Amino acid sequence: MANSSPRFTPTEYAERLAKTRKAMERQGIDTLIVSDPSNMAWLTGYDGWSFYVHQCVAVGPVGAPFWFGREQDAQGATRTCYMLDEDIIGYHDSYVQSTEKHPMEYLVAKLKERGWDKGTIGVEMDNYWFSAKAYAVLDNGLDATLVDSQSLVNWQRAVKSEQELEYMRIAARLVERMHSRILEKCEPGVRKCDLVAEIYDASLRYDPFQGFGGDYAAIVPLLPSGAAAAAPHLTWDDQEMKVGEGTFFEIAGCYNRYHCPLSRTIFLGRPSYEFLEAEAATLEGMEAGLEAARAGNTCEDVAQAFFNVLKKYNIEKDNRTGYPIGLSYPPDWGERTMSLRRGDRTELQEGMTFHFMTGLWMDDWGFELTESFVVTDGGPECLANVPRRLFVKD
Amino acid sequence: MANSSPRFTPTEYAERLAKTRKAMERQGIDTLIVSDPSNMAWLTGYDGWSFYVHQCVAVGPVGAPFWFGREQDAQGATRTCYMLDEDIIGYHDSYVQSTEKHPMEYLVAKLKERGWDKGTIGVEMDNYWFSAKAYAVLDNGLDATLVDSQSLVNWQRAVKSEQELEYMRIAARLVERMHSRILEKCEPGVRKCDLVAEIYDASLRYDPFQGFGGDYAAIVPLLPSGAAAAAPHLTWDDQEMKVGEGTFFEIAGCYNRYHCPLSRTIFLGRPSYEFLEAEAATLEGMEAGLEAARAGNTCEDVAQAFFNVLKKYNIEKDNRTGYPIGLSYPPDWGERTMSLRRGDRTELQEGMTFHFMTGLWMDDWGFELTESFVVTDGGPECLANVPRRLFVKD
Repeated sequence: MANSSPRFTPTEYAERLAKTRKAMERQGIDTLIVSDPSNMAWLTGYDGWSFYVHQCVAVGPVGAPFWFGREQDAQGATRTCYMLDEDIIGYHDSYVQSTEKHPMEYLVAKLKERGWDKGTIGVEMDNYWFSAKAYAVLDNGLDATLVDSQSLVNWQRAVKSEQELEYMRIAARLVERMHSRILEKCEPGVRKCDLVAEIYDASLRYDPFQGFGGDYAAIVPLLPSGAAAAAPHLTWDDQEMKVGEGTFFEIAGCYNRYHCPLSRTIFLGRPSYEFLEAEAATLEGMEAGLEAARAGNTCEDVAQAFFNVLKKYNIEKDNRTGYPIGLSYPPDWGERTMSLRRGDRTELQEGMTFHFMTGLWMDDWGFELTESFVVTDGGPECLANVPRRLFVKD
Repeated sequence: MANSSPRFTPTEYAERLAKTRKAMERQGIDTLIVSDPSNMAWLTGYDGWSFYVHQCVAVGPVGAPFWFGREQDAQGATRTCYMLDEDIIGYHDSYVQSTEKHPMEYLVAKLKERGWDKGTIGVEMDNYWFSAKAYAVLDNGLDATLVDSQSLVNWQRAVKSEQELEYMRIAARLVERMHSRILEKCEPGVRKCDLVAEIYDASLRYDPFQGFGGDYAAIVPLLPSGAAAAAPHLTWDDQEMKVGEGTFFEIAGCYNRYHCPLSRTIFLGRPSYEFLEAEAATLEGMEAGLEAARAGNTCEDVAQAFFNVLKKYNIEKDNRTGYPIGLSYPPDWGERTMSLRRGDRTELQEGMTFHFMTGLWMDDWGFELTESFVVTDGGPECLANVPRRLFVKD
């Protein structure tokens, strides 16, 4: 990282490691292999676009964890992690995308050197960055029982520190600026790719008064229009915005890898009845959901409050309506632990942060008006302040 | 995809499927599970930022393949894939990031319905988007032998069609524009985040004369400065560019998901001896490498020609010096088949496309000056036309 100052204090990293070790103990895990780049960053500070090759942080039963990755990326680890050089281990480039040898063979050797190759070893079984092959190689090379530690570290990240919330509030300033720019620039005839250029500009530029510039979000801007907005994950093309179409903008501000996602919808021309109904239902449902978003209540309570209002409007939503947010790398700015949905009885705690994803994707249109919030000792704190309504440009 | 016209003809998709089936036959694979989004897109046209949940394309022994993914993304599949609705299969949202059930269980059921659950089934064992858990669930549910079909489809993508080359040439126009903008805007005191805003702007804006705008690249801009440039995969921060530092810009233009990567280095102030030597060595080495980049020669020949020149300059490079490029999704714009390195004896064929990644990452500085090229029936065609030198702003 060119930014030479670490993002968190040594004390905070030590607390994170201690929390993680406690969870390992509870689950009977001796050594933990952490492949998720968000988990790696949270534990050690590591930052870099190197997750397209095998890498991990290994947390043994005692002592400092070690960073493991491609030799050339060890340079980046030295610059961003808190650990000493001896705990930064690079593998030779001939391991990269080789059909003859695998980086996990080298990891096995390094675990053996430390005596961390025995007992019970946790691996993130359903993570993007821990492949089926990586599992097979580790399983073959280690004299240990491999168990699924999917989300073990993710769960430790759920309650945010003051410093983390500080970064998320800066991300909120960025997403406010992004939506303000969209509203200013979005009109019939404007090309989507040009609008995306404006969104990136607003997400990145340094603000000399507030003293920060932006980082890349874990997901690129999503802005489908008209019937295509029925599909929630389309990106953009180079065609013109049209009168008579609604477009939702699902975007996030990002600072020091901390996110504040927020969606709004713009209708060009006179909105149809569906859009006005969707707006009314979402606004009322969101109020109900936010009212339920209190420490001691559950994830399900928030979802149910929202769904109950939608039902009054004859809108059926059976996908989940939110997820925890914070530190993230592509491909997802969610933390992949809780879900705001029926059946998730996880209790909300002060300092947890969620994207209340109240999006509606119907047969031939879509509408998104969302908030990101922090659970407090009272009602939730909405991170960003963007007018909560359907934007209409007639 | 909001762009309503398909990116390739039905004939081209049919040819791709036929090529893939031939490779399956050679490897004794009855059914192929394709999880890599680049492979999914190449086979079916599917486009969307939905790879953060489980999805795949299944190619059975006969008939049309089917797309498999989250129910809400089936809408995106209908809009971007060539297949009929009956071959687009969505799973219920309750499978998403659930600890109780797994999308691969539903895939097993769907494979059974078609009788594609027997014999030998290929899965992409070392792919980001096929997790260890996905493997375990499939292995448990299927009455079949699972084999590693890693890169089977990637290899079919190596030789590009005329239409693919057309998209890559547009991507080359975009990367030219990006470097031209960087050279214009990069100077002492400019903040990195602002420079990145300029890079995105140049990568995206619609060109009314040429008739295209840009897409997102599979990797965000990498632009480390000074000593941090020793680390190849750092992104950016909000600090100012400084006199006396070299910064490399590793970026790609992208159009319809086809990439043209290209790196250049800018030195602010008077470049040190190391930079001038690196420039001279790279230029001479690149000429030698390009001279060797002819159909019938091997990947190793190109690398060796480059390394031999570096050696004359007393520069040792032992990481790989290039890889195939084309259609890509995050986290990587490489195709993950061949490597331009010692020991890779793959023969170059007309229509193959490579990023000749001649980057040098030393102890406390880094230098990148690269080209992307197409193998032709004569010498290679360099896709972009950006002055091939160290840029100095004194």
